[in-house]
Amino acid sequence: MDSSGSSENVESRVHELNIKEEVMIIGEIKKEEELSVEQIFAKKEVPSWKKQLTIRAFVVSFVLSVMFSFIVMKLNLTVGIIPSLNVSAGLLGFFFVKTWTKLLERSGLLKQPFTRQENTVIQTCVVAASGIAFSGGFGSYLFAMSERVVKQSEKGQDGFEYKNPELGWIIGFLFVVSFLGLFSLVPLRKIMIIDFKLTYPSGTATAHLINSFHTPEGAKLAKKQVRELGKFFTFSFLWSFFQWFFTATDACGFQKFPTLGLKAFDYKFYFDFSATYVGVGMICPHIVNVSVLIGGILSWGIMWPLIETRKGHWYSADLDPDSMQGLKGYKVFIAIALILGDGLYNFTKVLSQTIAGLYNKIQDRKAMHLPVAECSSPIAKTLSYDDQRRTQLFVKDQIPTWLAIGGYVAISAVSTATLPHIFHQLKWYHIIVIYIFAPVLAFCNAFGCGLTDWSLASAYGKLAIFTIGAWAGASHGGVLAGLAACGVMMNIVSTASDLMQDFKTGYMTLASPRSMFVSQVIGTAMGCVISPCVFWIFYKAFPDLGMESSEYPAPFASVYYSMAKLGVEGFSALPKECLKLCYAFFAAAILINIIRDALGKKRSWLIPLPMAMAIPFFLGSYFAIDMCVGSLILFIWQKKNKAGANAFAPAVASGLICGDGIWAMPSSILALAGLKPPICMKFLSRATNNKVDTYLGS
Amino acid sequence: MDSSGSSENVESRVHELNIKEEVMIIGEIKKEEELSVEQIFAKKEVPSWKKQLTIRAFVVSFVLSVMFSFIVMKLNLTVGIIPSLNVSAGLLGFFFVKTWTKLLERSGLLKQPFTRQENTVIQTCVVAASGIAFSGGFGSYLFAMSERVVKQSEKGQDGFEYKNPELGWIIGFLFVVSFLGLFSLVPLRKIMIIDFKLTYPSGTATAHLINSFHTPEGAKLAKKQVRELGKFFTFSFLWSFFQWFFTATDACGFQKFPTLGLKAFDYKFYFDFSATYVGVGMICPHIVNVSVLIGGILSWGIMWPLIETRKGHWYSADLDPDSMQGLKGYKVFIAIALILGDGLYNFTKVLSQTIAGLYNKIQDRKAMHLPVAECSSPIAKTLSYDDQRRTQLFVKDQIPTWLAIGGYVAISAVSTATLPHIFHQLKWYHIIVIYIFAPVLAFCNAFGCGLTDWSLASAYGKLAIFTIGAWAGASHGGVLAGLAACGVMMNIVSTASDLMQDFKTGYMTLASPRSMFVSQVIGTAMGCVISPCVFWIFYKAFPDLGMESSEYPAPFASVYYSMAKLGVEGFSALPKECLKLCYAFFAAAILINIIRDALGKKRSWLIPLPMAMAIPFFLGSYFAIDMCVGSLILFIWQKKNKAGANAFAPAVASGLICGDGIWAMPSSILALAGLKPPICMKFLSRATNNKVDTYLGS
Repeated sequence: MDSSGSSENVESRVHELNIKEEVMIIGEIKKEEELSVEQIFAKKEVPSWKKQLTIRAFVVSFVLSVMFSFIVMKLNLTVGIIPSLNVSAGLLGFFFVKTWTKLLERSGLLKQPFTRQENTVIQTCVVAASGIAFSGGFGSYLFAMSERVVKQSEKGQDGFEYKNPELGWIIGFLFVVSFLGLFSLVPLRKIMIIDFKLTYPSGTATAHLINSFHTPEGAKLAKKQVRELGKFFTFSFLWSFFQWFFTATDACGFQKFPTLGLKAFDYKFYFDFSATYVGVGMICPHIVNVSVLIGGILSWGIMWPLIETRKGHWYSADLDPDSMQGLKGYKVFIAIALILGDGLYNFTKVLSQTIAGLYNKIQDRKAMHLPVAECSSPIAKTLSYDDQRRTQLFVKDQIPTWLAIGGYVAISAVSTATLPHIFHQLKWYHIIVIYIFAPVLAFCNAFGCGLTDWSLASAYGKLAIFTIGAWAGASHGGVLAGLAACGVMMNIVSTASDLMQDFKTGYMTLASPRSMFVSQVIGTAMGCVISPCVFWIFYKAFPDLGMESSEYPAPFASVYYSMAKLGVEGFSALPKECLKLCYAFFAAAILINIIRDALGKKRSWLIPLPMAMAIPFFLGSYFAIDMCVGSLILFIWQKKNKAGANAFAPAVASGLICGDGIWAMPSSILALAGLKPPICMKFLSRATNNKVDTYLGS
Repeated sequence: MDSSGSSENVESRVHELNIKEEVMIIGEIKKEEELSVEQIFAKKEVPSWKKQLTIRAFVVSFVLSVMFSFIVMKLNLTVGIIPSLNVSAGLLGFFFVKTWTKLLERSGLLKQPFTRQENTVIQTCVVAASGIAFSGGFGSYLFAMSERVVKQSEKGQDGFEYKNPELGWIIGFLFVVSFLGLFSLVPLRKIMIIDFKLTYPSGTATAHLINSFHTPEGAKLAKKQVRELGKFFTFSFLWSFFQWFFTATDACGFQKFPTLGLKAFDYKFYFDFSATYVGVGMICPHIVNVSVLIGGILSWGIMWPLIETRKGHWYSADLDPDSMQGLKGYKVFIAIALILGDGLYNFTKVLSQTIAGLYNKIQDRKAMHLPVAECSSPIAKTLSYDDQRRTQLFVKDQIPTWLAIGGYVAISAVSTATLPHIFHQLKWYHIIVIYIFAPVLAFCNAFGCGLTDWSLASAYGKLAIFTIGAWAGASHGGVLAGLAACGVMMNIVSTASDLMQDFKTGYMTLASPRSMFVSQVIGTAMGCVISPCVFWIFYKAFPDLGMESSEYPAPFASVYYSMAKLGVEGFSALPKECLKLCYAFFAAAILINIIRDALGKKRSWLIPLPMAMAIPFFLGSYFAIDMCVGSLILFIWQKKNKAGANAFAPAVASGLICGDGIWAMPSSILALAGLKPPICMKFLSRATNNKVDTYLGS
């Protein structure tokens, strides 16, 4: 899904590739030595593209999309780290349709068997729909415009522009910007997939997974994985349900458990019993978890206590603790410095790789003296059986170029006319400029993603914040203009790279590009409705959503707001000495990245990732501790039974994440119904407890 | 150990046999088809009885005795259910000496290899020592005499006699009564073991375990079991340590976790996260756990709430809640009715089986026309190789009869002279009567135990309470006299049956009766010092020990006090309608037992055990829920992997029990040092929490 490639999601996509490939190794490698994948499937008929798009596929996709939107939304609004949920989407999609077809088969009503093409259609649709939950910016740019975030960031001052979320304009906004990415790159699919032979690691891994599900051994393994997923899903769901009873207020419950003592709790070091982040820790590579923890120790363990001792010198002692002029300013801006430093480095790196890669590919083609359009048949002679068959089917169903260009122009026009009505700070000329550059940037991102598996959507979004924000200027609502532009840009760029990933998956599972495209369009449309609704439920159910002390602090919202403000107003907003620290951390982020790359893949595992380190800077280390627990569990499991861990850890982790995530659904419904938990599990120091006992006793 | 056979410990000994035998099956049965046990060991030399008594054996025994005394004491003082710890004692004894000898072997200093005889000596010594922790009555008759229990039971009234525990008189008391049991039955060992061939299931099982440890396969399995035990020991210890931090007062922490809601908590239905009782549940048969839960539901779920509605009618509404005239009276006396009904039934049953068995055995001997003393050699011809060899070694080392009789008379004399000084309510003629009947009762108990594995020590103790109490009479301190007499009787009867169990173990492991006897004497002496000291630590460290709200409520103390009072004063102490209920439950206990026996072993698993049902009557169901969780874990484990569960569940359960039990040691030391936990984990209702938040906020 979109989210997994964003810069906030540090490497999880790369990692996911590994685990999927290892899963494959167990299920398939023996067969593969004898027969190639397509030889195994040779006898299975490939249904026409229309038959790949079944109603049942979209029903299942809808159910899964709702489920994953809840999960992604919850992750967005709690910590902002979103692991790749492709494995769980794949497993659950397979499970649902397989159960469905089994039941139909028994009752004799099955008309069409469940094919891997149909499976790919589901996967694509779910990923597209739940991707909107991330790229919609509900935890970042979109919510950053709200009164709540603006007020919190501008504590003590009034008169700042804001735009509160409302169901109507959000759905409208998403509809006019989310389809552009699809149309902008459709014509280039053959070049990217067949001519350039880009890897698209995540897409390839997903295809492997789907292919394996449809071989007999793969199906058996998948069944076992689904069972594990189900077991941990149930456990995690029940655990969250149990926790709920003890959370009478936000200050109660397991989420406030001072596991490491009250002093450590004050500095946000505690294990909070969150099944989600233990699961996330199991999916993310160890280095991510360790980086997050190092970041937490560096910030809340060392820097903030030190800066606190400068209270009265560096910042006024009588400031509100939430003021951006005080300690919170240091937390947010130093984190932004790290994120921007890391983002800039990776942007430059991926872009230069993209340009170099592009140059080489074009040189290769020239060397063959072949025009772009006709290169497929002669090359085919040197191709393997698999590639021949895949190319043949990929080229068969065309999507007319006039449709793509026409669609892009039409949607752009509608969008240019509509958007200034939604955000009056964003002018029509800003939008036209974005739409002129967008296809190029979308191509860059899709190409880079194909090479490195790293989607830079949020980096492009930040670019838009700074450029459009500065252009609009402070007096013309540059902050909101910047945030809106960020949304437009992110949506285009991230759906474009997703589309290519899915084309790659389709290529490898013999799904028609047409059915892929239709599925993506339907999925995106679903997402444009589902995601805002899911967000709306959270927003209405938890009135303190976005507040720092809340269960759902939406940490990136204020980060995005502060970035936009920084872009418009420059460094004047920063407290004393903060700029120096920001420079230092910005430089450190770049330096660390250079060291990582210089050491090479094998030796860089000791160097933390700056992006991951930045997240606990404003949130604290509690989720880092959860994630490290997940890491530890995985590590011990791998020590004890490497094959078992590799086959089942992703399923277990998905179960943990999904169960806890899905609990967000009933929990928000309970909150909407006004049903509040009956018990408060409170943690008091000895002294306070004595006071309370005396008070209650009297 | 003594404790495991007491009537409060319902069937655990029987069960333990099964698990041990099953452990054996895995480790040994293949070999046994080829060679008998003694054929396997034929080449191993049996050391002389003096060489069986090594210093290292007693050092290890001492360490283990301290450990198990802590565990048994904790169990005594919390719930009063004490599972058989023989497996853990066996495993840990083996582990300690094996590690020790391995180390010596490597350093070249090992002079004497570790034999199964030495292992038996350790087992015997530890069981004897930690048995005193139970038969010393620290959770029952002895503590029942204390001011704390008397005052609690006689709430609102003064002027009742009491005797507070003090280290001096307790050690003295134990020394003068604990050895009598040993001397009273020593001369009969050959008749019981060789001539009557009594089974002594626990002793036999222990011998099997020890024998298996010393075969190569057995040692390998034992090593794995020790590792499991160690793992869960560590976990359980750390978990208790972690819990400690959150228990600033008795009203805080995991032990007050309203797992099933606040309403259920008020009626003591909650899971309290106790590793001990989960472990106990894994060792006890399912029926025990279910019975306890049924008892809890019947009493706290149905009866007490119903009786509460009669408040003001059946008992005065303005009584103190702790008054025996109020609800508490119903709780205690109905429980006593169940315990006495069950006890009476089993007493009658085992006694009649004993007499019938004895009659048959003597008939058998007469039929052979052989005098008792000479029967061994001719029978030997019909004996297996194993029995021949075992009999030969068992008969070799004699313990002179004059020593036994002399010892008994001498200790009786000292005891008769000393006891009235300790308890001035107990007259010398009471004691002489007890000592005249004691050997007969001890023989009955040892014989019954040999047949059924059911030690009736506490039933004989209750007999003494009622007879001696009534004899002394209310005006002459009959209550304290009864309790003291109970102590004398229980100690004699329970050590006697233990001795025979150990002789059986020794018989089967070729350990000399002399070394067994010496080990038992040393173990008993250790226990007479260790147990009072351990109790003293608890008593000093937890000033609310024995109070109903305490972490250590010592529930049986007030039950024993109430029984003694009942024996002296008759039914006048009971609140209204209570006597009718008591009759009903007394009859029900007998009826249920009759039904159980009528259905036979196979079909009786559906019928609960009255004794087990009685325990939660005054304590509530929280530990029943823990135990059922243990049962459930075992059940699922057995479903998934029967062999694995049977081999390792006892080790896992022992680890859980021992880790948590051992934590009692540092926890009481911390309490003695005045170090109190820093945090209170409190559970408040929503409304109370709001009040507290307002109070703390202002």
